[in-house]
Parts: sequence; structure tokens; C-alpha cells
Amino acid sequence: MNNQLTYAMIGGGSGAFIGEVHRRAIALDGSASLVAGALSSTPERSMESAKQLGLPKDRSYRSYEELLSKESVRTDRVDFVVIVTPNDSHYPIAKAALEAGFHVVLDKPSTHTSGQSRELAAIAEANDLLCCVTYNYTGYPMIRQARAMIADGQLGDIRKVFVEYHQGWLASDLENSGQKQAAWRVDPERAGLGGALGDIGTHAENLAAFVTGLELESVCAQLNSFVPGRQLDDDASVLMNYAGGAKGVLTASQICIGRGNGLSIRVYGEKGGLEWAQENPDELTVTLLDGNPTIYSRGGPGLHDYAVISSRIPQGHPEGYLEAFANLYRGVADSITKKRAGERPTRLGELLPTIRDGECGVRFVEACVESAHKGCVVAL
Amino acid sequence: MNNQLTYAMIGGGSGAFIGEVHRRAIALDGSASLVAGALSSTPERSMESAKQLGLPKDRSYRSYEELLSKESVRTDRVDFVVIVTPNDSHYPIAKAALEAGFHVVLDKPSTHTSGQSRELAAIAEANDLLCCVTYNYTGYPMIRQARAMIADGQLGDIRKVFVEYHQGWLASDLENSGQKQAAWRVDPERAGLGGALGDIGTHAENLAAFVTGLELESVCAQLNSFVPGRQLDDDASVLMNYAGGAKGVLTASQICIGRGNGLSIRVYGEKGGLEWAQENPDELTVTLLDGNPTIYSRGGPGLHDYAVISSRIPQGHPEGYLEAFANLYRGVADSITKKRAGERPTRLGELLPTIRDGECGVRFVEACVESAHKGCVVAL
Amino acid sequence: MNNQLTYAMIGGGSGAFIGEVHRRAIALDGSASLVAGALSSTPERSMESAKQLGLPKDRSYRSYEELLSKESVRTDRVDFVVIVTPNDSHYPIAKAALEAGFHVVLDKPSTHTSGQSRELAAIAEANDLLCCVTYNYTGYPMIRQARAMIADGQLGDIRKVFVEYHQGWLASDLENSGQKQAAWRVDPERAGLGGALGDIGTHAENLAAFVTGLELESVCAQLNSFVPGRQLDDDASVLMNYAGGAKGVLTASQICIGRGNGLSIRVYGEKGGLEWAQENPDELTVTLLDGNPTIYSRGGPGLHDYAVISSRIPQGHPEGYLEAFANLYRGVADSITKKRAGERPTRLGELLPTIRDGECGVRFVEACVESAHKGCVVAL
Amino acid sequence: MNNQLTYAMIGGGSGAFIGEVHRRAIALDGSASLVAGALSSTPERSMESAKQLGLPKDRSYRSYEELLSKESVRTDRVDFVVIVTPNDSHYPIAKAALEAGFHVVLDKPSTHTSGQSRELAAIAEANDLLCCVTYNYTGYPMIRQARAMIADGQLGDIRKVFVEYHQGWLASDLENSGQKQAAWRVDPERAGLGGALGDIGTHAENLAAFVTGLELESVCAQLNSFVPGRQLDDDASVLMNYAGGAKGVLTASQICIGRGNGLSIRVYGEKGGLEWAQENPDELTVTLLDGNPTIYSRGGPGLHDYAVISSRIPQGHPEGYLEAFANLYRGVADSITKKRAGERPTRLGELLPTIRDGECGVRFVEACVESAHKGCVVAL
Repeated sequence: MNNQLTYAMIGGGSGAFIGEVHRRAIALDGSASLVAGALSSTPERSMESAKQLGLPKDRSYRSYEELLSKESVRTDRVDFVVIVTPNDSHYPIAKAALEAGFHVVLDKPSTHTSGQSRELAAIAEANDLLCCVTYNYTGYPMIRQARAMIADGQLGDIRKVFVEYHQGWLASDLENSGQKQAAWRVDPERAGLGGALGDIGTHAENLAAFVTGLELESVCAQLNSFVPGRQLDDDASVLMNYAGGAKGVLTASQICIGRGNGLSIRVYGEKGGLEWAQENPDELTVTLLDGNPTIYSRGGPGLHDYAVISSRIPQGHPEGYLEAFANLYRGVADSITKKRAGERPTRLGELLPTIRDGECGVRFVEACVESAHKGCVVAL
Repeated sequence: MNNQLTYAMIGGGSGAFIGEVHRRAIALDGSASLVAGALSSTPERSMESAKQLGLPKDRSYRSYEELLSKESVRTDRVDFVVIVTPNDSHYPIAKAALEAGFHVVLDKPSTHTSGQSRELAAIAEANDLLCCVTYNYTGYPMIRQARAMIADGQLGDIRKVFVEYHQGWLASDLENSGQKQAAWRVDPERAGLGGALGDIGTHAENLAAFVTGLELESVCAQLNSFVPGRQLDDDASVLMNYAGGAKGVLTASQICIGRGNGLSIRVYGEKGGLEWAQENPDELTVTLLDGNPTIYSRGGPGLHDYAVISSRIPQGHPEGYLEAFANLYRGVADSITKKRAGERPTRLGELLPTIRDGECGVRFVEACVESAHKGCVVAL
Repeated sequence: MNNQLTYAMIGGGSGAFIGEVHRRAIALDGSASLVAGALSSTPERSMESAKQLGLPKDRSYRSYEELLSKESVRTDRVDFVVIVTPNDSHYPIAKAALEAGFHVVLDKPSTHTSGQSRELAAIAEANDLLCCVTYNYTGYPMIRQARAMIADGQLGDIRKVFVEYHQGWLASDLENSGQKQAAWRVDPERAGLGGALGDIGTHAENLAAFVTGLELESVCAQLNSFVPGRQLDDDASVLMNYAGGAKGVLTASQICIGRGNGLSIRVYGEKGGLEWAQENPDELTVTLLDGNPTIYSRGGPGLHDYAVISSRIPQGHPEGYLEAFANLYRGVADSITKKRAGERPTRLGELLPTIRDGECGVRFVEACVESAHKGCVVAL
Repeated sequence: MNNQLTYAMIGGGSGAFIGEVHRRAIALDGSASLVAGALSSTPERSMESAKQLGLPKDRSYRSYEELLSKESVRTDRVDFVVIVTPNDSHYPIAKAALEAGFHVVLDKPSTHTSGQSRELAAIAEANDLLCCVTYNYTGYPMIRQARAMIADGQLGDIRKVFVEYHQGWLASDLENSGQKQAAWRVDPERAGLGGALGDIGTHAENLAAFVTGLELESVCAQLNSFVPGRQLDDDASVLMNYAGGAKGVLTASQICIGRGNGLSIRVYGEKGGLEWAQENPDELTVTLLDGNPTIYSRGGPGLHDYAVISSRIPQGHPEGYLEAFANLYRGVADSITKKRAGERPTRLGELLPTIRDGECGVRFVEACVESAHKGCVVAL
């Protein structure tokens, strides 16, 4: 908990949801200290939010441009920049930050087009900078256990993946009630091509890729807008073809009344199957061919090192969403520290989702939208 | 438990699985008495099985033809005939039985082609005969509760249905080990066009239709044969379009290691959602918009009459698969009794799945196979 | 399903709950045929009920005395007698039946006093007659699996047992509303010394004994009557000491609003633990020291022969209360058939609960009532 | 997240488990900043740990005495002191800290004797100082919801409480393997009178009191030491009598193989019942008389303000042990801030467990030990 690293936040001012999640996740492990910010899109609200968060005056910036230019020339410049603005501004800000030489952490989905993500990736890679995209569900210890078991061949060749992400909170036209979180998500200008697909479908797509290591080749998608007046999908179903012959079914929906944050994944291979659900994240059920289901749990016996290092407290003492999120930031801190020292990242760093994963996510959305429009299979 | 009705069984001799299920289900409520049979496809095994079951000698028949011709002329002829032979013989036997004037109960899927089912339906309807197809999962009390709540408008217009039927027992090539149940299911001659799709996918299709009352308009299907050497699908994923705009996702798979008999359904409407899983059949979770989930249970408070009459014992004393199956036979007995008396069937009879439902099931398989082959949406 | 055995029922006429459960359980497997009865305590209602059940006129008896005397002298006399009258008449009827040379199946709790049960046991044993007490929860396949695993030493020496039986249906004074099932249970004349303790606590006590094989040495009990006006306990908590040093906690309550039929057992030994709950009876969770929980399920892999023979249908097709109950009757039929043939009973017969178990149950109630009254530990 | 408050930690140096939990819990919400410490019982290890945590040199103390005397005279003295030393030193340190005028947060169980806790309470109250005892499970939002619903009369008068705390990690003699956490817990010198009873039984006792508001009058306890060589109990069962006639059963055990951190509570009143389990903390099941179970969840609809303010992120995004723990520290920070301002504490402060609760917990252990020794009921 020795805060040697420092960070700046762009976006995430008062009233924002995800900015606070990032700050708490960083604070939980003391991965870094927040010392600078341009917290809103208007100068006044930026300064007001900075004051509320207790930022030093000289590092409370009025715009991201000001932040990047002034931090660039400080000797104690921040180690990394966290970008939690609305989706539509991710690309220019991330680009500017990377070009200014900062490591970047970017909320997902990374950008509006996959080309933009590809471009960011190229800049980051050319400059040996971190550009992490917060696919936070990959931070759950038992998801990392699942990944390790599959990579280790314990399920054999993977045949089929079922991944779903079902919520119910957009079952009515909440966007017309003044709910800010709903409003931007259903607005193509701010959200991009995908509604539920972009907001949560990309988490599901990424989770399947992270757990199985499979590469998506093509999709056949159906997109629905059930709530009258919606322009973007609030429900998506996708049949997926992976390289090597594995198949997948992904469903993402925000009209499932009764579902809170129902992300789950089930993977079946020739030698075994596994099942995990985000609302009960500390457990992973694994069944080998001709055997009985075994329940692995965070902090319990028989875990892979990837799961062990992603856990803080003993078995049966629940960790949750913030802890999983915080595992990404431990990886960020670890990676930056190792880079500085000229060393290779440790396992926490290896597991970090990057802008390349973000690119895959945006490409997935693009392909699904095209498939749904044309009524046919579309290659990625 | 007053066995006034009698029945004959065709198929279901020693070693058969489903014949014994039917007999137990009928016996559980004393819905009818087994008094005659042509229990196997060979005369010797038919007579041997009849002896084992204690059938009277003069009603132990060597073939279904003999059974139908001799029972036809008895004054105490059986009230109905149960056909539990392999799929490929359903059509000729059922046709002969109906033409001989017997009420018929037919295992699902009803016939190899939807045209055959349509023909059986026409004969049954022309002669005022029952031709029930045993979509047994419709017999679960909480499924009937779900149907009643939706029909009553409690969920509002239905938007989306997720129905899945996942098993793991065919994840390896069990058919090559001499396992009889596996062998016929993977053989196109005996099983028909669909593998997992026909065997369990049709149960899922029917369950969705029964619960929601929606009519299927078109499908987009992906069929997979994961186990090397299989000719028929062992895994199927289907995107479904219902009349009126509702959508569905159906997955049926027999390679999901760790899954026993994982049939489940989730239905979401504009005003609420519900969820049910066959392995925990006595519970139904219902959530209304802006409310918390409520767990209805068999024998508990607040149930519709359809659920009440489908239950035998108090809340918390589990009923299962056989009890649900037996509910169909209570409906059969009830319908026949009412027909005789010239009365309308009661609710137990109204809920009976018929050969028209069987026709839908076979048509569903045909359309999915065509869709998977052509790679496009196919209308039913 | 060849009904070679026949039985008579005493009690269980129209309106009775448990009589019908017994009849269905026997019918499910065709363990025996009901051919005679004295179904009620008044001659008129006995005859009326017999007619409803379709019993032959000459075997529809007006009283149990008539039944026993007339059946005794028939050449086709029934093989066994099922006694499902109110608790207070169990003793005289069972005694008369045994003295008339009939095998007896007796609903639990066997008798009002443990001395009466001891006496019945002596008669049965002296005459080589079966006197089974229907502790029906011992019929669940996964309970039999638990018993076999513990007997086999897989959990090591047993240290602690938690058994509970919680219901909510008597949380209000249902007995004053005319509910027949409630009325006799709260009436000391008919129910005996124990309320919840006798009605369901004895099931819990027996289940713990059946699963662990441990012998109860002494108890310290607290009995409560929460609903105003109740004379008998509607809630009981018992600390139990077993021979050899194992300890147990048993709670039985009928005022737990929200609980249907919440019987569960958890057993912990030096080498492992197991958990089972009646409302999800097809699963048994077992954890060995330093291992992860494994879920055994009915019909699944790795089961002991005792569990295998107690199951009818494949994994994932739920069996329930009636199927478990029916397993006792398969044992009864098996035992009688073997006795006739001069052979030893098979495993189904070995597992049958007898009047000796009934005696333990009544002695348990007596000791708990004494302990609660005196406020101290009481030996059994 | 504006760290206006500061704190010092006594104990909790490298290798300690609970000290880090406290630090993370405080950091999660930025409730206060760690600025001083005496982190170990030896000066060298204290200084080493302080360095690891990045404490300023002039506030890295060699002993708690030094910390208290030097901090006392600073103008920027810490706002509160967190004491996370082994149980046996709680009393002298807390006394000294309170006498030096610091607000205190004390790990549970507060002291070795109830008299010591009473003394601390008197000092704290006389000086208007906070002396919080970290019964952290009271911090769970759904536990606070349960408390609010009961206080509001929604369950009617409470009749029965079942509270259990079952773990399996001490099922073998881990203390002889060098495991530090195990070693002190089984040592009467360091742990006090109770083993499992003191370590986890007091959490259960407190949880029942917090949720129901009931006052414990007397107990009848059975204490067991199953693992050979243990001096203290590793398993405890307690029958409890509350003022006003309610009854309770508390079981605490550390030999339950397969159980991680199985704390659960079930409360039944005349009008309803509720159930909660710590390993699934975001849900609370409530059933009203003659109704169906309803599942309340953190972040979901229909919650009391006490639950709402104790939650950070939306429904379905799991919060866990650390978040619940952190809720106590938000209450601590809130209370101190309000005290300074001369205002009454807000709800977060009202809910804080105090040294009076700690006193009840120690008294509970004392009474149980006496009851188990004497074999009779003992009043508190």
C-alpha cells in the first residue's frame, strides 16, 4: 500500500459513475495516488470536482489538453492517465495522452471504430507505452482460474462457449426520465454503433476470448430494439464461429426484467466443462468427463497461481466487483513499475487487457451490426 | 385411483427406457390399467416382455397389427394405445391405431416428417379421437403456472424468450460402446433429421410455445456435430422470430459435460420476467417491473388453478419428472372420460399437447436443418 | 411391475393425506396391489371410501377388526397391512395385525410410548414378521449414498451432525380454522407427547441415525410453543450426545415462515463433510479434507450401489418425495418375497426402517420432553 | 474521497492479516489517511513495517506508548487510533489510547473479560470518545436492511433466531504446522476463554443482536474440542433465551470441512421470516405470512435508507467483505466529523457497533463457558 505511483484522471467528475469506481479500485490496494485531474468537459465543473476530491490546486486542470501539456513538463509528472469520459471522446484524448508519452488506462469500449483502436495500439506499441482497456470482469480470480485451466488443456479442445450478459434496467424508457446513465447509452452519437451490444456485449465477447483464448472468425447476429423509440439495440443475440472450429452463442440484453448484472460464461471442451456467473464470482464449477462437478472457490485449495495472486482475503469472505476491478490496477501498477526497472511484467501484468482487446471488441460490434443488417454471417 | 380406463402399449418391452416411464406415470395416479401389449418389434421378445409385465395371455400380442385387429373386436377393448416405439415407426403405427378407432398417445417427436404428423392430425380430428404427443415437460405445475401468468397478461407483451436444453451424456462417442439409448439417437435412419435438435431441441421449442403461446415464424440455425463420426447434430443454436415481433434464442446440446438434463426457460415481457429450470422444477421466479423477484412454488400460495390441479403433495415435498409426466396421463384419462360422457374436457385435458404440437416440432426441425444448410433464415 | 403381492390399508380414507401418499408410492413401482381395506374409523365412511377406491365388495371392511379376522382366513389373504390411522391408534391396530400374522407397515411415529413400540418389535421378531415404520426420508437415493460413504469410512470418525427440519405452515393457529391436518397434530390426545418434535423432529432424529449410524446417548432439549393456545411444542431445539463422542444439534420447528419442508442434514467427520437438503434431494455435496466440494447426484457417476438401486430415471430428471417413499415399499415387497423364498433380503430390504427405529424415535421424544421439563441432560 | 481525517494503527505489521483488512477498508472509501503507526510488538519490526507502508519517519513509532505520548502533543495529532493487536493486549492499549483522548477502533472480541470492556466503555462515555468494536458483519447492506425491517415491525414479534458460523479450516491441527493465524486462536493465553466461541461465535451473537434488537438473558451451551490436543473449543452450540420470550440457537464451529466462512442468520417472527447468508451477502430473502419469498438485493428496489447508504455500486455488481468492513469506517469518519461539528451522527454513525456491544460479546463467552462447565442454563 505504498503509493509510489501517481495518476491523473480525465473525466469522472461529480455525478459520474465509473470514475468513482476507478478511484476506489485504485485506492483499495493503494496501487497509485490520484494527484491530478481534468474531471469534466467544462472548465467550471472540472475545477469544482477537483476541489471536491481534494486535488492540489496546481494540478486541478480545466481541460484534458491543459492537463496533458502541463503534466508533460513537470518533473513529478503522473505515471499514468485514466480516461473515463463518454465513449465518443475516448479516441482523441487517448491519442493525445499517448503522444504526450503517458501510459493510458481507457474505459471500454475503447473507441467508436476499430480503426481508431488500431491506431492507438500502434502508437502505444511504438512508444512502449501501456494502453490498458478496463475489461474489468477479467479481473475476477475465478475467471483467471478458468483461463489457466483451459490454457493448461484440462478441458481439452474447446467445442462450445455460451456467454450471456443480461440486465433488466433498460426494460422501460428510462432515458426519457432524465436518468443520465441511460441517456448516453441509447444515444448513437455518444454510445457508438452498439447499444446493449457495445455496452455489455463487448464485455461478454471479451470474457469469452479471455477465458478460452479462442479467436473469433465470424458472427451471425440479431439485434433488437424492444423499447419504443430506441435507435440502438437493447437486445442482441450472436452465433459465433471461432478459428479451429469451436462455436459460441453470445446474448446481451438490457430488457431482462429481474436480472441485475447477469454476466455468465459456460465453456465445454472434449474433456470437461466449466461454468461461472458474475453474481456469484468466488465460485467456479468444473466437471471432467465422467466425473462429478467440483466447486473451486477463491481462496480455496487447488488453484492456479493466476487465481491466487488475484485474491486478497480468505475463502468464504466475499470479494466482488471492485476487487476484480482493482486487480487490473494492480496489474497496471506492476507493469509500469517493471517497465521502469527494465524488467518483464509479472503475471498480474501479463493478464492485463490492452487496446488490442479493445480493438477486437469494437470490431465485434461492427461485424454484428453488419450481420444483423444484412441477415448473413460476417467475417471479423 | 379407480382404474376404470384400460390401455395397451406398443413398444416399451424389456430394456426400453421410455416405456417404463410411461407405465410408471400412468400407475402413479392410477390413470388407467395396462391390460394389453405388443411390446417389441419381434414376436418372441414381445411375448417375453408381456409375460414379465404380467399381461393376460390372450392380450399379449406378437405385433402391433395383431394387437390392433384383435383389440378392435373385443367388447372390453382398450380405451387408448400408447406408442413408445423408435421414432421411425411412429407414423405407421399411430395411423393404424387411429384408423382402428383408438385414442392414441405418442412419444415425441411425433413423426419423421411434418406432413406425416399433419396427416395423423387430420385423421384424429375427423374421428374425434385423442392423439396426444408426450411433451412431458409441459406437465410440470410451475410451467403451467408460467403459462397461466403470461396468458393472463402479467408479463405484458412478450419480447424475448431464452430456452435451452443442455445435456452432457453424448460428449463422447457413447454410441460406439454399445449403449442402446445413444445408438438410435445418432442414427439418421431411426432418429430422423435432427440429433440433439430432434431429441431435446423439440422439447425446448415446445416448452417455449406452451409457456408463451407465441407462434414461431422463422428460424436461423447453426447445427454442429462435435463428436467425430457423428452424422447428426449433437449441438444446435437457433435464433427464432415469433409472430408479433417477439424473439427467441434456443440452444440444445448433448456435449455439455457437467450438465444432466438442463432444460430451462426464461421469458421477458414489457411488464415482467420469469425463470424456470427443470432440475429445480417446483420453483418459478417471477419479477415485475421495478419489483423484487418473487419465488412461487408448487403447493405454495398465489398459484393459478392450472398449477394447483397439477400437484399432488404439499409445498416442499418435491415432485419430479414422473409426476409431471403423470399429469399428461391424468389429462388423457380425463379427456377420454369426458368424451365418453359427451362433456367438454376439464383443465387437465385442455392442457394436453396434441399431434398438432408434434407437427410444429417436426416442422421446427425441418426448418432448422434447412436454415443451417443454407446459412439463412427459413420460414416455418 | 408385476403385482404379485397384495396389501390391505387401515385408515387412509377420503380426505386423509398420508394414506394416498402410501397408495401412490406403492403404485409407482407396482410393488403390490391394494385389494382390501378398512379405510376409516366409522363403518359408513370406511365403506364409502372403499367404493371410491374401487375395492372389491367382499374385501371392503367396516373396521380393522373385521379386516384382520376375515383376511386371516382367506387363502388369498393379503401379504401385508398398511396402517395409516391417527397416531393414537397405531399401537392396538399394529399389535392385532402382527398377532394375526400379517407383515405390517406403520406410519411414523410408531406409537405413543416407546414401551409400546418395544412390545410390537418383540412380537414381530418372535414371529419373523416385518414391521416397517415409514421413515420415508431414508428412501432418498442420495441419503443412502451418504450413509454408504460414512459407513465406508470416507469421512473418518464423525464429530458433529447438524440436522434440522423447519416448516412454516403452523406459524398461525391454523388448527382453529378447521384445517384437519393441523388439528390433530396440536392435540396431545392424538399426537402424543411431542408436537413439532414428534411430527417432524423424529424424522430428523431418524435421518441423523440412518446416515451416520451413530447411537444417541443423551439429549438436552428446549421446547417452545409460540402460537398462543398451543399445548404441544411447535418448535424444538436439541443438543445431542452420541455414543463415542460425536455431538449433534437438532432443530425442528413449524413456525418458520417461508420454509416449506426444510429438512436438511450436515455431517462432519475428521476426514470430510457432507451436506444434503430434502428440497433438492437429488444432490449430495461432499468435501474431503483439503479438497474442494464435489456434487454427487442421483443417476450420476461414482455412486454406491445403495444409491444406484434406489433410482429409476437418469440424472437430471428429478425424482422426489413419492419416489423416495416408494423405495421403502420396494424394500417391503423385496423383503416379503425373499422371506417367502427363504432367502436373505437384498439391499433394498436391508435398508428398511423397522419398529426398532420407531422405538428410538418415541424414546427420543420422551427424553426431550423430560429434558425440557427438568432443564437438564437426559439419557436415552 | 477527501481524506481530511487521519489515523494511526497499533499492530497490523507485516504478516498480520486483519491489519491489512482495516487499511484496505479505510482506503476503499478514503475514509481517513494512515499517517502514524506502532505496527508491531517489537521496536525493530515496528519500524520495518512502518517503512514498508511508507509512513513518515517522525510518525513511525517503536511502541504504542511512544505513539500515544508523541501523537498527543502534536497539533496535527491523528483523529483516531486503530488497534489490531492480538486479543490479549487490547485492553491496556485501548485504555491508554482513550485516556490520551483518542477515538478508538478496536478489533473484536474487545477484551479478555467483560469487566475490562465495561471499564473501557465508561472511560469512552465519560470523555465523549468513540470506542468502536469492529463487528464487521453488521456492515453488510442487507443485514442493515434486515435490521430495519424488523425494527419497523414487518416480521411482528420475533419468536426464533437461528444463527450459525461454520468454518472448516481448523478441522485438523493446523496450529502445529506453524500457521500463525491458527496458533494464537487455539492458545488460551492469547485468545481468551473461547476458541471458536470467541473467534466467530461472538460475531454470530452480535449479528443476531444487531439484526433483531433482542437482549440476551441466558444461555445453555455445549462446547467441544474435537481436534486432539486443543485446549479451547473448536465447536460450540448454544441455546439462547432472549428477554421477552424469543429463543435462539447459535452454533459456531471450525471443524466443518467444506465450509469457508459460513455465517448465516434466519429470523422468524409472528408475521414473517427472513434469511441471509454471508457468502451471498447481497441478497436477503423475506417471506411474509401466507406469501411467497421475495428476494431483496443490494442496489435493488424497496430498500430501507440504512441499506441504501451502505452500498456503493449498482445491483448485481457484487460487494463483499471489504466493502462491508469499510461501511464501519465510513461510520467512524462520519461520527468523528459530526462530533467535531457538534452535530448528531447520521445513520452511518448510528449503526456503529461500540464497546458496549463488545462487552456483550465477552459476557456471552463467559456465560457459555460457565454453562458448558456446569451443564446448566446461565444468566448473562
